Amino acid sequence: MSPQPPFSGVSRRALLSAFAALPVLSISARAQTAASGDTLPSWNEGATKQAILNFVTAVTRQGSPDFVSADERIATFDNDGTLWVEHPMYTQLAFGLDRVKVLAPLHPEWKNTQPFKAVLEGDMKTLAESGEHGMAELVMATHAGMTTEEFEKIVTDWLATARHPKFKRPYTELSYQPMIELLAYLRTNGLKTFIVSGGGIEFMRPWTERVYGVPPEQVVGSSIKTQFQMRDGRPELFRLAEVNFIDDKAGKPVGINEFIGRRPIAAFGNSDGDLELLQWTTLTGGTRLGLIVHHTDAVREYAYDRDTPFGRLDKALDAAAANKWTVVDMKSDWKRIFAFE
Amino acid sequence: MSPQPPFSGVSRRALLSAFAALPVLSISARAQTAASGDTLPSWNEGATKQAILNFVTAVTRQGSPDFVSADERIATFDNDGTLWVEHPMYTQLAFGLDRVKVLAPLHPEWKNTQPFKAVLEGDMKTLAESGEHGMAELVMATHAGMTTEEFEKIVTDWLATARHPKFKRPYTELSYQPMIELLAYLRTNGLKTFIVSGGGIEFMRPWTERVYGVPPEQVVGSSIKTQFQMRDGRPELFRLAEVNFIDDKAGKPVGINEFIGRRPIAAFGNSDGDLELLQWTTLTGGTRLGLIVHHTDAVREYAYDRDTPFGRLDKALDAAAANKWTVVDMKSDWKRIFAFE
Repeated sequence: MSPQPPFSGVSRRALLSAFAALPVLSISARAQTAASGDTLPSWNEGATKQAILNFVTAVTRQGSPDFVSADERIATFDNDGTLWVEHPMYTQLAFGLDRVKVLAPLHPEWKNTQPFKAVLEGDMKTLAESGEHGMAELVMATHAGMTTEEFEKIVTDWLATARHPKFKRPYTELSYQPMIELLAYLRTNGLKTFIVSGGGIEFMRPWTERVYGVPPEQVVGSSIKTQFQMRDGRPELFRLAEVNFIDDKAGKPVGINEFIGRRPIAAFGNSDGDLELLQWTTLTGGTRLGLIVHHTDAVREYAYDRDTPFGRLDKALDAAAANKWTVVDMKSDWKRIFAFE
Repeated sequence: MSPQPPFSGVSRRALLSAFAALPVLSISARAQTAASGDTLPSWNEGATKQAILNFVTAVTRQGSPDFVSADERIATFDNDGTLWVEHPMYTQLAFGLDRVKVLAPLHPEWKNTQPFKAVLEGDMKTLAESGEHGMAELVMATHAGMTTEEFEKIVTDWLATARHPKFKRPYTELSYQPMIELLAYLRTNGLKTFIVSGGGIEFMRPWTERVYGVPPEQVVGSSIKTQFQMRDGRPELFRLAEVNFIDDKAGKPVGINEFIGRRPIAAFGNSDGDLELLQWTTLTGGTRLGLIVHHTDAVREYAYDRDTPFGRLDKALDAAAANKWTVVDMKSDWKRIFAFE
């Protein structure tokens, strides 16, 4: 992982307010837009939209040779870059960098220890060079050492005040309106929508229901280990500095099998991290939908694919052509990208 | 773990039929019984039944100080001894012993290697003495080394032919009718029912929806690791001989947090393995339901608590008194135990 500038705008943020409500549009308001207007109103007419509609019709129409019973209609969505913005860095990394700054007074040794020194000095080049080991140290120092309830509050408070450096808005407003309409459209047709993300499961669960309409029990993600303990007669789960599960690449089918226990019939991703998710979902012989969000709009969002540190789309783009997965061209397929446009 | 005799009746069973349908009553037929008759018809009137009804009324009545929104109504059930019979041995152990006999021709070395030698010779005393290490070896030898799809078929086929040594019926018919009514009653009142069992997650998922009305994605259990791989252009998950997660005792709150991501408002168990599940659910300050099934009916089922190798109920029985958990006296609280009575 090698973060790109600019992040100075993010890195100065801190935990300013403990009780502020998150200023995002409610999911109910946004879902109504999709339900009361045309189907998928933020999608332009064309082959991409038609592929989605055709798939849903095929699997839901009684008597169709492709009919899938309601129980088996599992749809899985990657999160970073598929449902919300992942550039110029993963939101969870921005959170981690901010946490290092907040916690620095408790850790005077960080001034002379990498990768913390680099974070505190805003030296992103050195941070990037610390590689996976550095990132793991960063995660453990900022995501462990508290109860699950405490961590949930830290995440919620951070999201209430942090702003994206380009859009100057809360990260939860940077979810893609066409994808939110798609989630609602699939649910209307009896598909059960799950998130299957490389991101931290406990970083996502506090807000996915409000923003995406996906409840905590339908979120699969990476995790660290937790330990049950009684403290003053009350039970709690303490977050340990030890990796439990990495829900990325070949880990995505593993996570789906473990958490959901059914093979999805539709999968939505945007990067090589979703290749195995798409393979597991679509290469079964039945009518399945594999879809890749291709970031092609440098003006309204970002344009990147084969050569980027976050959300690289290279092997999966080649596999899309070979396996007839649907590729969304954000620039031409999406009428609007964000609800606030 | 120290299995008790008799199991000779089980141990001679093998995989006789590859395609037989499981001869169990369908969940829809059994749930209808509960819906069309009185509420919980297989429960005798009394304090236990009333405690359940009072709890459900309290958390579902709008304006009640104990009201819980529908999203948060999570109910968690242990499986072995809580939803179906666990004596004279866990069903999954009976499955494992049968698998050793089926696989023995491929493993001539088992004739001289413990714990396999003991299983093949029906020497249950030596098997019991092999302890946790022996049990782990047994699980790995019989539950790993195939794809997830292959394992599901092995489990389904075994359940179609295996019979319980006392009741001479398929294990899936040995689910408790009062608990099936309770599951349906809770769902009717907007509670989402999950299984949280020390048993193998992939041993349960093939049949929990049909028998309990609990779909695969609402089953939490123990697991071994799996590995994603492509074989002849098709994706598969291969089951490895390595423990992934033990969903028992202090592991149950950990599993709930990881898989469900919400704290339950009701928990149902029967043994010390459910102590932390009950603590995690009930010791929160709100109105919660903790319930323990106490096996007190040696005639219709089994009677055991503090001194038994399977489903020992000792610490949790003391904790029930201290924490005001509801204790089901099977003999007096259940009008009937099985649907076939």
